[in-house]
Amino acid sequence: MTKKTLSTEPYKGVRDFYPDDQAIQNHIFGVWKTVARRYGYEEYNASLLEPTELYTSKTSTEIVNEQTYTFTDRGERSVTLRPEMTPTVARMVAGKRRELSFPLRWFSIPNVFRYERPQRGRLREHWQLNADIFGVESTVAEVEIIALAYDIMKAFSAKNGDFEIRINNRKLLNTLPNGAIPLLDKKTKMSSEEFENEWKKISDTPFTLSVDEETRGVLDKLAARGITNALFDPHIVRGFDYYTGIVFEIFDTDPQNNRSLFGGGRYDNLLELFGDEKVSAVGFGMGDVTIRDFLETHGLLPKTISATTVMLCPLSMEFTETAETLARELRAQNISVAVYYGEKKIGDQIKIADKKHVTFIIVVGDEEKNSSRYTLKKLEDGTETAGTADEIAKKLSSV
Amino acid sequence: MTKKTLSTEPYKGVRDFYPDDQAIQNHIFGVWKTVARRYGYEEYNASLLEPTELYTSKTSTEIVNEQTYTFTDRGERSVTLRPEMTPTVARMVAGKRRELSFPLRWFSIPNVFRYERPQRGRLREHWQLNADIFGVESTVAEVEIIALAYDIMKAFSAKNGDFEIRINNRKLLNTLPNGAIPLLDKKTKMSSEEFENEWKKISDTPFTLSVDEETRGVLDKLAARGITNALFDPHIVRGFDYYTGIVFEIFDTDPQNNRSLFGGGRYDNLLELFGDEKVSAVGFGMGDVTIRDFLETHGLLPKTISATTVMLCPLSMEFTETAETLARELRAQNISVAVYYGEKKIGDQIKIADKKHVTFIIVVGDEEKNSSRYTLKKLEDGTETAGTADEIAKKLSSV
Repeated sequence: MTKKTLSTEPYKGVRDFYPDDQAIQNHIFGVWKTVARRYGYEEYNASLLEPTELYTSKTSTEIVNEQTYTFTDRGERSVTLRPEMTPTVARMVAGKRRELSFPLRWFSIPNVFRYERPQRGRLREHWQLNADIFGVESTVAEVEIIALAYDIMKAFSAKNGDFEIRINNRKLLNTLPNGAIPLLDKKTKMSSEEFENEWKKISDTPFTLSVDEETRGVLDKLAARGITNALFDPHIVRGFDYYTGIVFEIFDTDPQNNRSLFGGGRYDNLLELFGDEKVSAVGFGMGDVTIRDFLETHGLLPKTISATTVMLCPLSMEFTETAETLARELRAQNISVAVYYGEKKIGDQIKIADKKHVTFIIVVGDEEKNSSRYTLKKLEDGTETAGTADEIAKKLSSV
Repeated sequence: MTKKTLSTEPYKGVRDFYPDDQAIQNHIFGVWKTVARRYGYEEYNASLLEPTELYTSKTSTEIVNEQTYTFTDRGERSVTLRPEMTPTVARMVAGKRRELSFPLRWFSIPNVFRYERPQRGRLREHWQLNADIFGVESTVAEVEIIALAYDIMKAFSAKNGDFEIRINNRKLLNTLPNGAIPLLDKKTKMSSEEFENEWKKISDTPFTLSVDEETRGVLDKLAARGITNALFDPHIVRGFDYYTGIVFEIFDTDPQNNRSLFGGGRYDNLLELFGDEKVSAVGFGMGDVTIRDFLETHGLLPKTISATTVMLCPLSMEFTETAETLARELRAQNISVAVYYGEKKIGDQIKIADKKHVTFIIVVGDEEKNSSRYTLKKLEDGTETAGTADEIAKKLSSV
C-alpha cells in the first residue's frame, strides 16, 4: 500500500477559523448578543438538520434540490441543511404556541448553508444573526426591529452617514401588476434601460409608487428616535415569499460598496403552515461575511484582540515548575495565563508571545524562584511592574 | 389542492433549544470558555462539512458509511458531517505548520454528528469542548490537559469526591497480546465472567498490568497540584486508533451513574497523515449532553438565568411611547430592557415577566409620564426603589 497524503484544505466553499479569524467572529457575535440582550431578546438555537418538508411547502422542490444541501438518510427521511433560520423559528414557535408568552423576542446566531456552484467561488456556509418578535400586530414591532438593527450598526461604531435603511411595504407592492415583484428583486443586477424595457412588458404606465401611511408612520417613529438615515424606497422587495407587510434593507452608502448589507420584514402568515392560527412576526437576518466586509471597508474592525493576558517564560526547563505555581496563583484570580513549554531562549519566547498577541510576559528564573517576586513586562511599551503573585494579580485585574 | 399541515417536530435525533435550554447551554459553554482561556487556550473553529477522506484514512470506509452522515455533492465530492473534531484540528495545524508558533494551545466548541439507528433514541448531534496542546513532547502537556479538565469540573462546582480521573498508557497496552485492546474497550459492557472467558481466548495468563514510570510521573505531578482523585486504571483504552501514549477518562463516582463522562490522551502521529513531520499533541473532548446529565444528577445546575433584567409594563397602550423613551435611556447604560407590547392588564403583564424569569418590572402610567420618576420593583421579593431613569440605571448597574 502506498501512503497517500491527505489535503489540508477545508471542504470547497467553507472557511477554517484560525484564532485570529475566530477573534473577529467573536467580536461580531459579541456585539450581536450584547445589543439583542439589551432589547430583551432571548437566545434560542436548533440543529442545522431539518426535515426537507419544512422548505418544500413554501418553495418549489426544484429550488430546494438545486440550491440546498438535501440528502436521504438511512431511515428514508429527506434531510436538508437549513438555508435560512426563519422556517426553523416558525416551527419552534408553532410547536410551543400554547406555552409561550407573547410578545416573544428571540435571537439566534445559526450557520446556514447554500449550495452554490463551485466555480463561482461563493461561500456555502455562513453565520447569521436572526432576531424576531412574535405576537405584535402593530408597527411598534417594525420600529423596534429596525431600531435594534440600527443600534447594532452603531455598536459596531458605524456613523449614520455610513449606512441607510430603505423601507418599503409588501402591501403596496401587491398593488403592482403581475411580474413586478420578481422584476424589482432583480433590478440592482440590471441597467436602468434594461429595467425600463422589462417594465414595459408588464405595464403601460411607468413604474411609480408613493409612500403609504403605514410606512410613513414607521419612518416618523424612527426619526423621533434619532434614526434619521431611514427612507422610503419603492424598489425594496426582499427575496422571500413569506413577507406580508413592511420590508427593509440596510445599504452601505460607500460608493465603492453601495450594496444591501442585510434586511428583514413582517411575515404574519408563516405559522399557518403548521396548522396554527396566525401569529404576527417581524424579524431580520444579518450575515457575518457581509458585516465583516463592511467593517473592514469602513476601518471599524478592532485591532487584534489577545485571548491570553500573560505568558510565563521560564529561563530554562528547570523553572517550569516555578512558573506552573505562579500560573495557578494568577489563574485562581481569573487571569488568563499560558506557560511556555519548550527549550527556546527568552528572546525567542518573547517573539512567540508577540506573535500570539499576548499583552504581558513574566520571566521566571533563579531570582524569581528564590524571592517569589516577579516582574510583569508589558510587551507593547516595555513598562515593568514588580511584586508578589498577589500584587501582580491585583495589578492585572485592574487593567 | 388540499392544505397539508407541517410537523413542528425537529429532525429525528436532534434537539431544539428553547430559551430555557439555551440558557443552560450558555452556562456550560461559558464555563468551558472561561477556564480554557484562563489556561491561555485560543478559540478556533471550522465548518462541520469535511471531505470524507479526512476520516477514511484512519477508519474503514464501512465504519465511515455506517456511522457518519456522508453524502455526495453535485461536484461528485464526498462530504461528511464531522463525527469528531480531532481530524479537523490536525488538518488545520498541519495546514499552517510553518506559520504557527508552538506550543499551540487551542480550543473549540463544535457540534459533531453520529449516525445512530433511529430506534435507539440516541442523539445524532451534540456539542463538545475540544482542547488540545500541540508541540510538547514531555508529559507536562498531559499534566496541563488533565489539570484543565479537572479545573473545568471544579468550575462547575463539582467536588473531588464527585468524579475520578482514570489514567492509562497506550505504550503499556501495546505490550499486551493481539486483541486485548478491543476487548478492554468493550469491558464495561460485559460481566467479569464474560470478560475472563474472552480473555482466555487471547492469553494463557490472567489479565494484569502494573503502572509504568510515565503514568506514575503524571499522577505524582497531578497530586502535587492537589489533584488527588486521579488513579492508574489498566482498563482505560479510549476508542480511537490515533492515541500513542497517556490516555485518560473522567468517571462519575455516583453509584447510580458510574460511567465515563469524557476523556482524551496523547496522539503524536496524526499530523503525519498530511505528509508533515510529527507534531506532538495531547487533548480531550467533553460533551454537552453528558456534562449536563452529570450536573443535573449532582444538583449543580444554576437556577434559571434571566436574559432580561427589566420589563417595562405600560398601564395601557398610550404609554408605550413613554416606556420606549425610558427603555432607550436604560439601554444606553447597557441594561437589558424589554417593553411589553400588547393590550394585557398589568397583573397579566407581571405573570408574563415572571414566566420569562425577568428580575425587575417598572409600571409606566400617567404619574410616571408626568413626573419622569419610576418605581423599580423586584419580582422575587416585591422590594421597590424609586428614582429618575438615571438613578434607576445606576441602581441596576450595581446589582
